[in-house]
Amino acid sequence: MASTISMVVVLLALAYSGALASDPSPLQDFCVADKASPVLVNGLVCKNPMNVTAEDFFFCGLNKPGNTNNKQGSNVTAVNVMQIPGLNTLGVSLARIDFAPYGLNPPHTHPRATEILTVIEGTLHGSFTSSSTPDMHADAVAITGLSSQNPGLITIGNAVFGSDPKIDGGVLAKAFQVDKGLIDYLQKQFWMDNSN
Amino acid sequence: MASTISMVVVLLALAYSGALASDPSPLQDFCVADKASPVLVNGLVCKNPMNVTAEDFFFCGLNKPGNTNNKQGSNVTAVNVMQIPGLNTLGVSLARIDFAPYGLNPPHTHPRATEILTVIEGTLHGSFTSSSTPDMHADAVAITGLSSQNPGLITIGNAVFGSDPKIDGGVLAKAFQVDKGLIDYLQKQFWMDNSN
Amino acid sequence: MASTISMVVVLLALAYSGALASDPSPLQDFCVADKASPVLVNGLVCKNPMNVTAEDFFFCGLNKPGNTNNKQGSNVTAVNVMQIPGLNTLGVSLARIDFAPYGLNPPHTHPRATEILTVIEGTLHGSFTSSSTPDMHADAVAITGLSSQNPGLITIGNAVFGSDPKIDGGVLAKAFQVDKGLIDYLQKQFWMDNSN
Amino acid sequence: MASTISMVVVLLALAYSGALASDPSPLQDFCVADKASPVLVNGLVCKNPMNVTAEDFFFCGLNKPGNTNNKQGSNVTAVNVMQIPGLNTLGVSLARIDFAPYGLNPPHTHPRATEILTVIEGTLHGSFTSSSTPDMHADAVAITGLSSQNPGLITIGNAVFGSDPKIDGGVLAKAFQVDKGLIDYLQKQFWMDNSN
Amino acid sequence: MASTISMVVVLLALAYSGALASDPSPLQDFCVADKASPVLVNGLVCKNPMNVTAEDFFFCGLNKPGNTNNKQGSNVTAVNVMQIPGLNTLGVSLARIDFAPYGLNPPHTHPRATEILTVIEGTLHGSFTSSSTPDMHADAVAITGLSSQNPGLITIGNAVFGSDPKIDGGVLAKAFQVDKGLIDYLQKQFWMDNSN
Amino acid sequence: MASTISMVVVLLALAYSGALASDPSPLQDFCVADKASPVLVNGLVCKNPMNVTAEDFFFCGLNKPGNTNNKQGSNVTAVNVMQIPGLNTLGVSLARIDFAPYGLNPPHTHPRATEILTVIEGTLHGSFTSSSTPDMHADAVAITGLSSQNPGLITIGNAVFGSDPKIDGGVLAKAFQVDKGLIDYLQKQFWMDNSN
Repeated sequence: MASTISMVVVLLALAYSGALASDPSPLQDFCVADKASPVLVNGLVCKNPMNVTAEDFFFCGLNKPGNTNNKQGSNVTAVNVMQIPGLNTLGVSLARIDFAPYGLNPPHTHPRATEILTVIEGTLHGSFTSSSTPDMHADAVAITGLSSQNPGLITIGNAVFGSDPKIDGGVLAKAFQVDKGLIDYLQKQFWMDNSN
Repeated sequence: MASTISMVVVLLALAYSGALASDPSPLQDFCVADKASPVLVNGLVCKNPMNVTAEDFFFCGLNKPGNTNNKQGSNVTAVNVMQIPGLNTLGVSLARIDFAPYGLNPPHTHPRATEILTVIEGTLHGSFTSSSTPDMHADAVAITGLSSQNPGLITIGNAVFGSDPKIDGGVLAKAFQVDKGLIDYLQKQFWMDNSN
Repeated sequence: MASTISMVVVLLALAYSGALASDPSPLQDFCVADKASPVLVNGLVCKNPMNVTAEDFFFCGLNKPGNTNNKQGSNVTAVNVMQIPGLNTLGVSLARIDFAPYGLNPPHTHPRATEILTVIEGTLHGSFTSSSTPDMHADAVAITGLSSQNPGLITIGNAVFGSDPKIDGGVLAKAFQVDKGLIDYLQKQFWMDNSN
Repeated sequence: MASTISMVVVLLALAYSGALASDPSPLQDFCVADKASPVLVNGLVCKNPMNVTAEDFFFCGLNKPGNTNNKQGSNVTAVNVMQIPGLNTLGVSLARIDFAPYGLNPPHTHPRATEILTVIEGTLHGSFTSSSTPDMHADAVAITGLSSQNPGLITIGNAVFGSDPKIDGGVLAKAFQVDKGLIDYLQKQFWMDNSN
Repeated sequence: MASTISMVVVLLALAYSGALASDPSPLQDFCVADKASPVLVNGLVCKNPMNVTAEDFFFCGLNKPGNTNNKQGSNVTAVNVMQIPGLNTLGVSLARIDFAPYGLNPPHTHPRATEILTVIEGTLHGSFTSSSTPDMHADAVAITGLSSQNPGLITIGNAVFGSDPKIDGGVLAKAFQVDKGLIDYLQKQFWMDNSN
Repeated sequence: MASTISMVVVLLALAYSGALASDPSPLQDFCVADKASPVLVNGLVCKNPMNVTAEDFFFCGLNKPGNTNNKQGSNVTAVNVMQIPGLNTLGVSLARIDFAPYGLNPPHTHPRATEILTVIEGTLHGSFTSSSTPDMHADAVAITGLSSQNPGLITIGNAVFGSDPKIDGGVLAKAFQVDKGLIDYLQKQFWMDNSN
């Protein structure tokens, strides 16, 4: 199987989005996120170390293919601080991306992370200078490493045309230099969020 | 005149773009950028301190209104490390934004900075949760502070539809869930860059 | 009016103070400061995102001239995380500085920020190599961008001669190489704090 | 094949090594490493952007299993800034780890990075609180994401017993509370570096 | 006495450990650690500034020699955020190291700090390229500065052979390429922790 | 001798100056400063690692008392990246401060570092809330650790009254609310720099 790990390592979202923060450094060996705490801080408050268990550092589920039965034919399974509380303060996360044949991961940025991607199976096309949208010619699976415990995800199309409440159509018509009817049409297209 | 400084301080591009890096800290009193050096580094190499002059820390020109005679009716005059070499390593920059009546600053992100904005003259509408696109009801002038010597600027429309070379139309048609003819139309609209 | 935006962008407090930290990066889209929380952290804890409103990202008041009827003839109106709770974790803030004719902003440092300044109206003299004290020849208004949500402000004169409790006069006499009577005189001069 | 992606995501080297720096943030869209430059800086100097090509952001080779025919029965194929010059300034890298049956990745730390690991094939045992040494019960392949362009690697055994020149045996005998003959024996065991 | 301050300043643990994070920057003048708070964050939450006293910034005890009557003949007295609550958010700490004649500080790393060391009395041998283990030829005292409020300490021998619960002996035998009986012997040697 | 290490650990310059940057993290094991290089960057460029020697990480001279025969009766011997090229990129430095009886270290700030101080011999008075000026009642020696490779030093008196060229006397008279004759007198007092 190892030979099916594809030869393409793509560095996504660079010229296109290039959102490149690095998380602050940790100040203790670990600070496992206490997601139930009413106290909210930059990142998450820590569980009492006495209550930390091995489960806080594990996640089971990346073996399951994501459901690519959607319009884009792709699915992102994110493994960040919400899935692994032990990632809190550590500045790193992971994701699995599944592609149906000819599926694509729509143009997006990670506002708090850089990303490195390796194809596990299949073939992936993409060149971030002209686009961050890879298209696929077969089922494909990729693993990406991200430099934040909580990289964030902004799918351009959704953010512009699918926001709730909607951006005023006249504003978008001017911004995109098209007539308002077209904007109305685009706003109707958007969108179930298939990205996490 | 001071009374014409408007009452609106808008924090742009947060939920929408939210790209939030902070520049690395400086390691000396100043490191004035030597833009002519053949040596390229993260940021810019420094001029010999013996050759640093007061001009390296000044920029004249923010008094001139930007030309808003363009499709969006707005103009950004950036003052970053390219305009003020002394900003190198200091992690801060500034911009003036001019708006014609009903002008707008198209949806954009700064991949390496947060932004704070104060309206100097006129009225500015904007709400980053539904949009980062302010529209205007009169001539307006705003000053923004940014947390990087080189904030970067990604105008969404240009990046998606106006890239050179073009993103494949079929890919965009799928990404935006519209037919390819519409993408062709959108790609023809884009775009002179009026943003610096 | 735009033509009255002055041509001088001054980078203050560099060689003189040069305090140049950058705030830690954010770990979520926003973390609006909950100033009423009894829990105190580096920065401020966040409000429940359900309770965040547009007002958390706005401040009205920079249109009002600061009161320059004081000994220095200047006034700083700071807009930082205390005025805009939404600035929490974002590493940027703003201030308006008003100057009466011949007013000056006394020598100061921002221990946690760099600063960039643009003159909106009037003329401002300053050269940080020999001094960070600008003097004015007319009413003037300036806007400064700062690279911290909470830049801090240390007015040199106040810190040395106006501290409460007072620094021992004998110590200051030795530090400044003057007789103690002079120090007593200086300590009597200081000082209402007009800086925020 | 996707179903063979294992269910174990292990966060390695935390309590054991926990070296947790984050790379400084970038100050431009990209700064592709010029590995041939005689000028050496923190990180690497950048190529002229005119000479940057798509190849600077790609690496082919993670499809090839590493040679696990060595004493530990494991092999790390690192993909960092030395393999992908475009990673320079971006603070992220990747590695593939192959394990022969019962192979292990010897105790190690990454002095400049945190690490997140997903098993692609096989089963991997490991618990960083008592050890960072995973042992295997079958061929296995894992992908790790690391939060630095150049994570570094310190294999404890090599560093202590296999350094060149050798650490004085008497010193190690005292440090490890064993007789010097045993140290001599251990020093003879160490070690070809199989880690990149 | 000043003449007994030795001439050796050693930069320890560089090539050997090189763990080199820097603490996040502070966001207020001080944030004195409230060690009794049930709320746990990255670093420590702050005491109410009203309750801060001079004692929060002082520590008395570095005048007392550490007890070097142990197997390594050395003792580290750490002064970090646990001893001086006022160090919280400030990114610096200190330690005193005492050595009995021929004592040594066993191989170790500080996962969150760099270290600089000055010998106050006696002579200290050490060269981090081949080892970070200094040996001594007389009573000696050294002071080290560290770049974190909580540098952490990993004594290699203890971490590998003295962990609780124990690392599986078979795993270590393979990792260190020795027979398991030897590992058993080494595990019996380890170890009271004399390092803070 | 160890018993003469005083019991006072003072955290200086906090509320008073509080300049609190942390140096950017290193991106390689070491980057020994090449002080002779014509290329200037944030920090210093690195020597060729082939030419690095043990001397690059050592400094001999902290055993020599500084000359306190000056007006303040104190002397700072700094050991930073200029004295130890190997400190480049490591974010830490050290200093020895000597005090003559009743000597004092004039009010100062370190714009790029926090500071922790331990008294080696003698007694040192200081309280940074009211002042950072310690006075002495005997010969004393202190060692300070600083969180930057190049902390910087701004002695308030020199910066305000002893700058070259001079700050305009009229400006200072207004800033300090005294008559200009007094400023002239103060400017004549300043000052040989005894601080490194």
